[in-house]
Amino acid sequence: MHFDRLTRLAVPVLVLALAFGSALAQAQEPTKAEKTLKYRKAVYQVIAWNFGPMGAMAQGKIPYDAKEFEMRAQRVAALTPMLSESYSPDTQSVSGSKAKAELWSNRADFDAKMKDLVDRSATLAAVAKTGDAEKSKAAFMDTAQACKACHDKYRAD
Amino acid sequence: MHFDRLTRLAVPVLVLALAFGSALAQAQEPTKAEKTLKYRKAVYQVIAWNFGPMGAMAQGKIPYDAKEFEMRAQRVAALTPMLSESYSPDTQSVSGSKAKAELWSNRADFDAKMKDLVDRSATLAAVAKTGDAEKSKAAFMDTAQACKACHDKYRAD
Repeated sequence: MHFDRLTRLAVPVLVLALAFGSALAQAQEPTKAEKTLKYRKAVYQVIAWNFGPMGAMAQGKIPYDAKEFEMRAQRVAALTPMLSESYSPDTQSVSGSKAKAELWSNRADFDAKMKDLVDRSATLAAVAKTGDAEKSKAAFMDTAQACKACHDKYRAD
Repeated sequence: MHFDRLTRLAVPVLVLALAFGSALAQAQEPTKAEKTLKYRKAVYQVIAWNFGPMGAMAQGKIPYDAKEFEMRAQRVAALTPMLSESYSPDTQSVSGSKAKAELWSNRADFDAKMKDLVDRSATLAAVAKTGDAEKSKAAFMDTAQACKACHDKYRAD
C-alpha cells in the first residue's frame, strides 16, 4: 500500500469532511472541554447499553446466553479504559457534568476506583470466555460494584 | 467465587440502582427505539473522538505517535462492530435520526458497507501495530473512505 501524493492531498479534505460535514449547521463550535464531556457521556452510554443484557441475565430476567454475555463483557472491557481520558481538569467547570467537586479534590482515589473498574471488567471478560454462568454472573457483580463505588462517591444524581 | 444467595438477592437492587439511579429525575422514560438511537449516536461519538488524533497525524498536524495511533486504531476496531445492532428497524421513525430513507430500502447494501468498515478498521488496527507510519496512515485513509462511502449515501446532513 503506497501512501502517494494524491492520497496525501486527499487526507485533509476527507478528514475535514468527516469531522465537520454535519457540524456546519451548528451555530457555535463547542469548546474542547464541552467536547470532552460529550465524549465521556457517550462512553458511559455505550457501556450502559452493553451492561444491560448482562444485568438482565444476572437477574434471571432473560436466560444466560454464554456467547452474548462474552461479547458484552469484551465490549465493556474495551470501553472502560476509554473513560479516564475524559476526566480532564478543564471539564470541571462545564455545565451538564455530574462529577462532584470531591472528584477533583480526591483525584488519586478517583483514579484508583477507575483502575479498579478497568481491572474488574478485564476479569469479567476473561471469566465470560469460560462460559461458566455462575462465575460470569459473579464477575459481573464485581464489575457493577466497581461502578457503584465510584458513582456513590463522585456522581451527583 | 461463589454466587451465593445474598449476592443473588443483591443483583436486582444493584442493577436497578445503576440503570435508573439518575433516570428517576426524568419525566418520561424513552422508548426502546429512542434508546437505541441514543446508543447509535454515542458509538459514533466515541469513534469520532478516537478517529480525531489519527486524522491529525495523517494530516501531519501533529507528529505521528505510533503508540497512540495503535491505541486509537484498536479502539476504533473494537467500536465499529457495535454499530450494526443500533440500526434496528424500529429506529426508522425516531426523530433526530440522520439515517436517510434509502438506508432502510437498501439494507443489504448498507450492511455490506458496514461490514466494509468493520473489516477496514480491523486491518487498520493490525497495520497500526507494526508501527509503520506510512502504512498506518494509508490504512487510516481506507477506513475513513469506508465511513465516507456510507455517509454520502445514507446520512442526511
